[in-house]
Amino acid sequence: MVELTPERRIQDMALSIPPAPTPFGSYVETKEIGSLLYLSGMLPVVGHVPLYTGAVGRDLSTAEGYAAARTACLSGLAAARQHLGSLDRVKAIAKLGVYIAAVEDFRDHPKVADGASDLLSSIFGRENAPPRIVLGVLNIPLGMSVEIELVFEIEPYRH
Amino acid sequence: MVELTPERRIQDMALSIPPAPTPFGSYVETKEIGSLLYLSGMLPVVGHVPLYTGAVGRDLSTAEGYAAARTACLSGLAAARQHLGSLDRVKAIAKLGVYIAAVEDFRDHPKVADGASDLLSSIFGRENAPPRIVLGVLNIPLGMSVEIELVFEIEPYRH
Amino acid sequence: MVELTPERRIQDMALSIPPAPTPFGSYVETKEIGSLLYLSGMLPVVGHVPLYTGAVGRDLSTAEGYAAARTACLSGLAAARQHLGSLDRVKAIAKLGVYIAAVEDFRDHPKVADGASDLLSSIFGRENAPPRIVLGVLNIPLGMSVEIELVFEIEPYRH
Repeated sequence: MVELTPERRIQDMALSIPPAPTPFGSYVETKEIGSLLYLSGMLPVVGHVPLYTGAVGRDLSTAEGYAAARTACLSGLAAARQHLGSLDRVKAIAKLGVYIAAVEDFRDHPKVADGASDLLSSIFGRENAPPRIVLGVLNIPLGMSVEIELVFEIEPYRH
Repeated sequence: MVELTPERRIQDMALSIPPAPTPFGSYVETKEIGSLLYLSGMLPVVGHVPLYTGAVGRDLSTAEGYAAARTACLSGLAAARQHLGSLDRVKAIAKLGVYIAAVEDFRDHPKVADGASDLLSSIFGRENAPPRIVLGVLNIPLGMSVEIELVFEIEPYRH
Repeated sequence: MVELTPERRIQDMALSIPPAPTPFGSYVETKEIGSLLYLSGMLPVVGHVPLYTGAVGRDLSTAEGYAAARTACLSGLAAARQHLGSLDRVKAIAKLGVYIAAVEDFRDHPKVADGASDLLSSIFGRENAPPRIVLGVLNIPLGMSVEIELVFEIEPYRH
């Protein structure tokens, strides 16, 4: 039986991981600290082109917010994969933060955040679902709709 | 002399720890990564019933915000206790985040955040007070007033 | 050749590190957990006197927001230096969070956040730039304009 590793699941779903993001300022996208991989805030962009901007509940529907969270999370996976060589080196997800630019009376944050959670579950398995911090913020760099924070636990590189 | 462990202090104060929270979406409440225990954002709920909703400074007074922070922090302790078996396995608190849905001109964030800090000090001792990140956010899932982030350092389980 | 350590760079730039901040409530400014040093949210203060208050884009220009981020980051360096004895014990920066109180249509978060990033690069070297989370929040304790979150990886103390 073939083990369902993250990379195998990505292949089976024919999921396309976008190019790894590059910084908008003087920071790095990934930093390995011991067995943890910290990521910069991930945005719903392709390259430096914003795909989802504005407030969820006004400029975007909840379904579009879900898509924005998924897109930003895909950028995070691209960054992690570029750093690690393979997502099969991910042992666990220590933190998923989902920050949503929403209108004041927005309440459906969990439905938006599921755009990231569902993507992670489809790749790393439901049994590896991470803890999650979800907040509605005033705004996000460049007017984007969602920002994703990820901290991975990783396997050391084996030669 | 009996050592004042967290569980002993809880007993002495006759403090009632509520049932551990269960997720509102596809995530887990706790994740053990090496010697750290990461928690999901904790809300002022009992079960899935929100106890404190709306903006501090409009719908809630600062004193009610303090109570909301304490209630959300209690949920975090319940989640940690369920995971660890006993809060005596907590060695330190690495991070306390207090995110407050407030009106725009709200300034008394520290007084609200003390609802979580005071609870933690009463259980883990003032000498174990954690570093703290406090922010006023636009809104919180389901319209709740406060969300708490906790990362614990834990003792390995001894057989 | 003299190695360009952080403390040496601070000396060469004649950079003045302010007094270490002291808490506004029941928390600590720094907490050492294994090889990580977690800091409380750092504010643009000197002592307990706020230097930058109000919303960037209304009460402060983007350039003043940059200065606020730099000032808050200096407080973080002061706190870390007091804890560690010397910033030469910093091995890496695991996380830089920059939280900005801004007007709703503010878009230049990266330019404000660079106030912290540029300071860190000038001391720890561009090659040690951290990953970065940047968010626009509704407000910050005491009405301040920027809050900085820092997690350092540190060298164990050598006798």
